[in-house]
Amino acid sequence: MSENGVGSVGGARVAPRTEDVGSDYPGAFPNSKKVYLEGTRGVRVPVREIQLTGGEPPLRVYDTSGPQGVDVRLGLPTVRATWIRDRGDVSEAARTLRPASGVEMPTGLTRPTFRGSGAVTQMAYARRGEVTPEMEFVAIREAMAPEFVRDEVARGRAIIPANINHPEIEPMIIGRNFKVKINANIGNSAVSSSIEEEVEKLRWATLWGADTVMDLSTGKNIHETREWILRNSPVPIGTVPIYQALEKVDGVPEELTWEIYRDTIIEQCEQGVDYFTVHAGVLLRFIPMTANRLTGIVSRGGAILAKWCMAHHKENFTYTHFPELCEIMAAYDVSFSLGDGLRPGSIRDANDEAQFAELKVQGELNKIAWEHGVQVMNEGPGHVPMHLIKENMDKQLEWCAEAPFYTLGPLTTDIAPGYDHITSAIGAAQIGWYGTAMLCYVTPKEHLGLPNRDDVKRGVITYKIAAHAADLAKGHPGSQEWDDALSKARFEFRWRDQFNLSLDPVTAAEYHDETLPAEGAKVAHFCSMCGPKFCSMKITEDIRRFAEEQGLGAEEAVDAGMKRMADEFRQKGSEIYVEAGD
Amino acid sequence: MSENGVGSVGGARVAPRTEDVGSDYPGAFPNSKKVYLEGTRGVRVPVREIQLTGGEPPLRVYDTSGPQGVDVRLGLPTVRATWIRDRGDVSEAARTLRPASGVEMPTGLTRPTFRGSGAVTQMAYARRGEVTPEMEFVAIREAMAPEFVRDEVARGRAIIPANINHPEIEPMIIGRNFKVKINANIGNSAVSSSIEEEVEKLRWATLWGADTVMDLSTGKNIHETREWILRNSPVPIGTVPIYQALEKVDGVPEELTWEIYRDTIIEQCEQGVDYFTVHAGVLLRFIPMTANRLTGIVSRGGAILAKWCMAHHKENFTYTHFPELCEIMAAYDVSFSLGDGLRPGSIRDANDEAQFAELKVQGELNKIAWEHGVQVMNEGPGHVPMHLIKENMDKQLEWCAEAPFYTLGPLTTDIAPGYDHITSAIGAAQIGWYGTAMLCYVTPKEHLGLPNRDDVKRGVITYKIAAHAADLAKGHPGSQEWDDALSKARFEFRWRDQFNLSLDPVTAAEYHDETLPAEGAKVAHFCSMCGPKFCSMKITEDIRRFAEEQGLGAEEAVDAGMKRMADEFRQKGSEIYVEAGD
Repeated sequence: MSENGVGSVGGARVAPRTEDVGSDYPGAFPNSKKVYLEGTRGVRVPVREIQLTGGEPPLRVYDTSGPQGVDVRLGLPTVRATWIRDRGDVSEAARTLRPASGVEMPTGLTRPTFRGSGAVTQMAYARRGEVTPEMEFVAIREAMAPEFVRDEVARGRAIIPANINHPEIEPMIIGRNFKVKINANIGNSAVSSSIEEEVEKLRWATLWGADTVMDLSTGKNIHETREWILRNSPVPIGTVPIYQALEKVDGVPEELTWEIYRDTIIEQCEQGVDYFTVHAGVLLRFIPMTANRLTGIVSRGGAILAKWCMAHHKENFTYTHFPELCEIMAAYDVSFSLGDGLRPGSIRDANDEAQFAELKVQGELNKIAWEHGVQVMNEGPGHVPMHLIKENMDKQLEWCAEAPFYTLGPLTTDIAPGYDHITSAIGAAQIGWYGTAMLCYVTPKEHLGLPNRDDVKRGVITYKIAAHAADLAKGHPGSQEWDDALSKARFEFRWRDQFNLSLDPVTAAEYHDETLPAEGAKVAHFCSMCGPKFCSMKITEDIRRFAEEQGLGAEEAVDAGMKRMADEFRQKGSEIYVEAGD
Repeated sequence: MSENGVGSVGGARVAPRTEDVGSDYPGAFPNSKKVYLEGTRGVRVPVREIQLTGGEPPLRVYDTSGPQGVDVRLGLPTVRATWIRDRGDVSEAARTLRPASGVEMPTGLTRPTFRGSGAVTQMAYARRGEVTPEMEFVAIREAMAPEFVRDEVARGRAIIPANINHPEIEPMIIGRNFKVKINANIGNSAVSSSIEEEVEKLRWATLWGADTVMDLSTGKNIHETREWILRNSPVPIGTVPIYQALEKVDGVPEELTWEIYRDTIIEQCEQGVDYFTVHAGVLLRFIPMTANRLTGIVSRGGAILAKWCMAHHKENFTYTHFPELCEIMAAYDVSFSLGDGLRPGSIRDANDEAQFAELKVQGELNKIAWEHGVQVMNEGPGHVPMHLIKENMDKQLEWCAEAPFYTLGPLTTDIAPGYDHITSAIGAAQIGWYGTAMLCYVTPKEHLGLPNRDDVKRGVITYKIAAHAADLAKGHPGSQEWDDALSKARFEFRWRDQFNLSLDPVTAAEYHDETLPAEGAKVAHFCSMCGPKFCSMKITEDIRRFAEEQGLGAEEAVDAGMKRMADEFRQKGSEIYVEAGD
């Protein structure tokens, strides 16, 4: 796998902030360049333009990589800063918490902190009929009408996760009438990994196509890691705040309190986290439903809250304080990602009582969030065999009033640890087709260890495949254009174009070159799989050219005049054939 | 990727023919051993028994690897030889063709050649009500009643590909009421690869789980390569005879004749090929239907025959001579795999007129094959977006009278060359669920180059995943047992068992060890993903144990007595927790 195209991290290198040149990704995407589609109010939407040969027009594809070549100690340009200020509904405020750790924070990463005077959410604006610059950005990015974007956000069928304290993002939308999105998880744990590694994983994941990134750090310096990530992230960042809250009580779930959790929420709102996973649907009365499961509770957040509920014999405090949570999050436009703490952890436990009991509560909580103008999506499983996948989507649509669904896979079998990116992509593609708006990636290391660079890349590419397959199956407008461009290049033996149109051009080229390394093979009208004599595409070309030379449509060619033509073709065809063998 | 467990090929090493010890696969499958289930008449069915810890019974899984450690210059034991002779309906005959090439053929690979007096096919026996040893073998292997196997074969809903000249195979069945099977393609081309490499790929593919192997060789020494492969193959071997026929006319399709093709068929029947891909459904009148396709004809065999038809303005000779083909194949029990020469080569071309016109003809040909007592399955696409997959299965079931369907993928998007094992596994899992009986694997090199060892392994494992996911979704009896065993091992932190239950144990273990290499981590009650404090499974264990210690079901635990228990739990739970952190 090539690891070109990503600059050093944490070093002193200061690259120019040139936005017109994809200065960091030519290595990853040869013959692509980043171009910007201009909107109003400073809206400039990045797209990757893949240059083609053979007189073909360039293909423009969705781009998540953000400005490349930016010094991570300065952070990304704050494209949304003026949009947020111009709305006149936020005021600057000192941060309530700035932990004094030993980690040096570069001054270049300092940003003013804002808080809204009320619900300063994209949903609130949409309900008022406003098309914000964020909505305009998304509309251009998705080739949809701005008013459609606004309407989908207003009715809660789509969300634009965009904390007012995360001005660096290039806005994106999650909803089933838009392109299916993918999330990549990063995050250090007590066992492994450093801030630099996490920031690098972020840049790497977005380079390959992650639409959002969740920072699941649980180790030391959790606040500082997040700050570095946010300031360098062009995509929305999600977190699970209960992880940090647990760190504050030294890992003892029973010691958690609403106040500690609330302060953690505010701390992360101020930093700029765009969406929070909150396991507010894990209710005390559901916990016994998991006792006879094969694999119990597999969600970390779910397990922590379940333990708290059991220990105190009290209801989940994120549930009892949900309205207060909404008020806080509305003031920063942080979206809910309502967690599925009781999701199944195995094929055996799929679609059980506990899982669906929680999903129903998620639906109730959606309504409360919407009453506060807070954007919300629902998390879904997990481990589900194919025949039980659709029920998940159907119930979510019904019970959760069409809020976006955001699923982890699901894995369609449990027998292949080491390959769970694949076991889960099978399920992810299907649930995406059925209507899931965002797919949380799974890497080959799932269940086994922490993903490294290659794992992150494989996870992202695998999920780009699942998401795109889902777009095709839904008949999403324009999605097939990419497939057609690549297939045409393949048929016309434009090898370089075929590589460059792949989700992973360098790997495609490397695989080709393993068998036919010579430069001439990249213009050959055959390939290593069949050799020149057996090339079906070559033969088809011959057939088509012959029909054209005769000035006949192929339909006619089989009719009356065909017999005479057959003799000619036998001669000409043979000649053409010999040429191909060269 | 570990490459342990496979002996050198073409060398002089002669390992003992010990069948009770999986002498070649301990490296691939640690803590597994091959055991044999005894039937009557010398039937001994191999299964892989995975030894588990923690008092769990061993898990037995389907095994395709054949006798290991056998000298490839002697070939495999001829387990079927007496069964074939005992039926008394075949006689020994000299081979009609033994090409004199420069390739040395070891005398150890010499076998007598047989020809049947009439239709000596499993279908013919089944129709007469006989349960052959092959059927008994399959019944034990699939845990089905022998009579059920016989009935499925008799009515053509399943096939047992088993040439009377391939006594080395361990019989297997292809039909939608049995486990979904996978095929791996190997074969050299004019550009690359040797006999030794191909035999090694065969052994490697079956080690990891290929149920059949197609030899798609098109280069030199095609006869000798096939002979080596057949004599060393425990699984049925399929070929596309038109490839060799084309070699005989120096690669000029127009020069092909029925006679050359027929003689090639007989040559391969005598060698022991178990099924032939025959593109008899590519009719002259269908060819114009492909002219406006984005990617024309992508099947090699289809393109060769299309060119022949166009050049001569004659009907496809494999169609016009189909009854004669049936007579030949019936005398050796070679099964048809009716090719889909007009399958779509891109998302754009899926489910078009040409494709379905050919499928309908396949259905007509099935009936002719069955009239001759010849077993038959139908090949299917190819490149199909998810929403169009089911139509393929529905039409095949209707038009082809439930003969087994055997599909290539299908690929669900065209934008990821380098990852087409994944784009296609998504489609393969679905079409398997809908009823496809065998899935032809796709490797990461598809469309780019020839697969190497790692590619073959990745293709096979990926397709084992798709096939097993399909079995689960169909609710195939006993299939979930494997998932449950692995999930239970995962939940109980039996790490070694979890690795050993994976389709690829060594890779699973390697991935784990990348983050937590210490031997102690294999018994740890947490893992690298979350660390000890965040382990949801650990917490669930704590909850469950607490309820048990109280002598209460978890349901009751939440009831009246719960409040008192909560206090105790807070204490005990904390203690347990500290232990886990050790």
